[in-house]
Amino acid sequence: MIKIKGFQASGISAGIKQSKKKDLALILSERECVAGGVFTQNKFVAAPIIVSREHLALEPDSIRAIIINSGNANACTGQQGVINARKMTEAVAEKFGFRPTQVLVASTGIIGEQLPIAEVLAGIQQVATQIRPDGWREAAEAIMTTDTRPKLAFRSVHLQDGEVSMLGIAKGAGMIYPQLATMLGFIITDAVITQEALQSALKTAVDHSFNCLSVDGDTSTNDCVFMLANGGAGNRTIYLGTEEYIKFCATLTELCEELAEQIAGDGEGATKLIKVIVKGARSTQDAKAIAEKIATSLLVKTAIFGNDPNWGRIVCAIGNANAEFNPLGVSVKIGNTCVFSSGAPAKFNTDELRNQLQKNKEVLITVELTDGTATAHFWTCDISYDYVKINAHYHT
Amino acid sequence: MIKIKGFQASGISAGIKQSKKKDLALILSERECVAGGVFTQNKFVAAPIIVSREHLALEPDSIRAIIINSGNANACTGQQGVINARKMTEAVAEKFGFRPTQVLVASTGIIGEQLPIAEVLAGIQQVATQIRPDGWREAAEAIMTTDTRPKLAFRSVHLQDGEVSMLGIAKGAGMIYPQLATMLGFIITDAVITQEALQSALKTAVDHSFNCLSVDGDTSTNDCVFMLANGGAGNRTIYLGTEEYIKFCATLTELCEELAEQIAGDGEGATKLIKVIVKGARSTQDAKAIAEKIATSLLVKTAIFGNDPNWGRIVCAIGNANAEFNPLGVSVKIGNTCVFSSGAPAKFNTDELRNQLQKNKEVLITVELTDGTATAHFWTCDISYDYVKINAHYHT
Repeated sequence: MIKIKGFQASGISAGIKQSKKKDLALILSERECVAGGVFTQNKFVAAPIIVSREHLALEPDSIRAIIINSGNANACTGQQGVINARKMTEAVAEKFGFRPTQVLVASTGIIGEQLPIAEVLAGIQQVATQIRPDGWREAAEAIMTTDTRPKLAFRSVHLQDGEVSMLGIAKGAGMIYPQLATMLGFIITDAVITQEALQSALKTAVDHSFNCLSVDGDTSTNDCVFMLANGGAGNRTIYLGTEEYIKFCATLTELCEELAEQIAGDGEGATKLIKVIVKGARSTQDAKAIAEKIATSLLVKTAIFGNDPNWGRIVCAIGNANAEFNPLGVSVKIGNTCVFSSGAPAKFNTDELRNQLQKNKEVLITVELTDGTATAHFWTCDISYDYVKINAHYHT
Repeated sequence: MIKIKGFQASGISAGIKQSKKKDLALILSERECVAGGVFTQNKFVAAPIIVSREHLALEPDSIRAIIINSGNANACTGQQGVINARKMTEAVAEKFGFRPTQVLVASTGIIGEQLPIAEVLAGIQQVATQIRPDGWREAAEAIMTTDTRPKLAFRSVHLQDGEVSMLGIAKGAGMIYPQLATMLGFIITDAVITQEALQSALKTAVDHSFNCLSVDGDTSTNDCVFMLANGGAGNRTIYLGTEEYIKFCATLTELCEELAEQIAGDGEGATKLIKVIVKGARSTQDAKAIAEKIATSLLVKTAIFGNDPNWGRIVCAIGNANAEFNPLGVSVKIGNTCVFSSGAPAKFNTDELRNQLQKNKEVLITVELTDGTATAHFWTCDISYDYVKINAHYHT
């Protein structure tokens, strides 16, 4: 079982979801943590986001816990919603004897309904008793909505004076889009690190992972990624911009990329994980604009669902991107097969490529430009009948 | 039968489509026409677009014909594609005895395959013989791809010194998105108008209609709207900025809006036409950004397919728009039912609204802001199983 010394977690059913599936998770640290957070860009901000932003600003070096519920987003719930989010932090704080401002809170689920706060508060009593060092899988399950499987990742990195570990759980499924759409992520580490360095590393890692991720192009009111560092590893403090920081940041990015890939592969109704890589762009911005345009093209995503190597739709998406490039220098590969070369169709065996697509659960689309050296990647998934079914017939 | 004196049209099967459905249309004017055009913003520009742009620049006051094929987009076809597009204009010009530069050309269909040029040239001989004043329905049928019905509209307007008429045909279906995605539109009028006024009126009308239209968010390599004015009405010349110009422009906008609505209602797999109206915005740009974000939200579109009055998804889309507004001033109506009022959920009968959605083929979503007086609208359609089917299993 993966764990990190000094952190505990648990996940239970508090009765928020009618299905009686797990819906309340708690992450607890034995000591005060340096904390970082990134938040949704949506202009309707859910109550837990308002409260967590406030607590992070007040206690950036002394967060002790994160309480998360699924089944109800506590969004568009007005002042009562904010009161309820505060009550969640108060209940956790009282149970363990620290300040409410030392608790972060996150929610995901249906929008516009008040939390069943009595059940949530009773659930907090219960989830607190079940807390244990290896409770991460239960916690990952308790934050799921339409996800079909829990998402966990673990990494460690050797620094000059010892090993630092990090562990993350996340949820995704629908409404996944930059910036961070109904995407929750929670990462813990035993690193000794300044708040400034932690926040910067988290921002960088999220930009390269969760912000390169789309299931259906919608961004939610509740998205957030929180990170806690308890300093248990006893390494020399990691400061922004140092060599140790760069290593830490690279490892954190890897961890977030693994979680992002798990989220894309488990998109609502998805049958395939699609990874788009763009190389040779004039700027990272251009590379990302092209990768994103391909990854968010419904026509590309439905073609992949149908195992159709329809390069015309990929080229069309490239042409729609807000980027400068030479169209005559564009080449495209699906898997290892070149389908478009220097701005013109390439000869390839369609049936063979179709068979390959049929067999593979992962599809790599590579775009090579001749305009520079910048690269970018983007994860997404195909769009299937089940996507439509899930979103047409279930009120989420 | 709708017709405009001095113009003729026809549509035939030239054997470009395997289905043997109509795939070649010709529009012919008895005299030289003042011509305008708007074109795709995609960076991969199809061969017919290259040729038509050139001809429009050379003969802005003397265009005689438009030749259009469906079944093959003549896009990503390199130099051979341009040669073939030119051959199409040459064949028409030779048949009727005018210059090739007096002919515009447009194509729609599969990307990356060369036109079966022998069939196309033989087809031009045939389509030329069938030309007649009331051939517009055949022409509208011949430009269809996955459209299920032809799209035509007619308008007339009284000016100071007589009546001016206009007639338009269009095709849409999939890949509909601003700016103009595999959308072809052809409009003729008998107005006497300067080229400058015609081009300006066309641009304005397109901005308020075809550029407020989305089926699936993709923009094609082939989109264009052409307009020809033969001067047959004998009205006093319409100059840019005059009162007569404003009337003409308003009527043309109405005509284009009607075609846009027909296109949205016939989106690939669509079961419902969705119209989004935003009022009370700080600027037209903000109003349009919000309307577009709602109209392109897959979650909104699948909810409407499922007859689910899921206002949370609409509010979420509003919050994602790149616009400035006061979230506490936002109200939302579905049809006549207020579902969200001044930034908070409104009380309404869900079952009743669900039944209404089930019964109606058209859904109106109205957003009221309290930030100003600007308005915008946007048309789209729902996303159904059939959309996925059409795009996963048919190579287009």
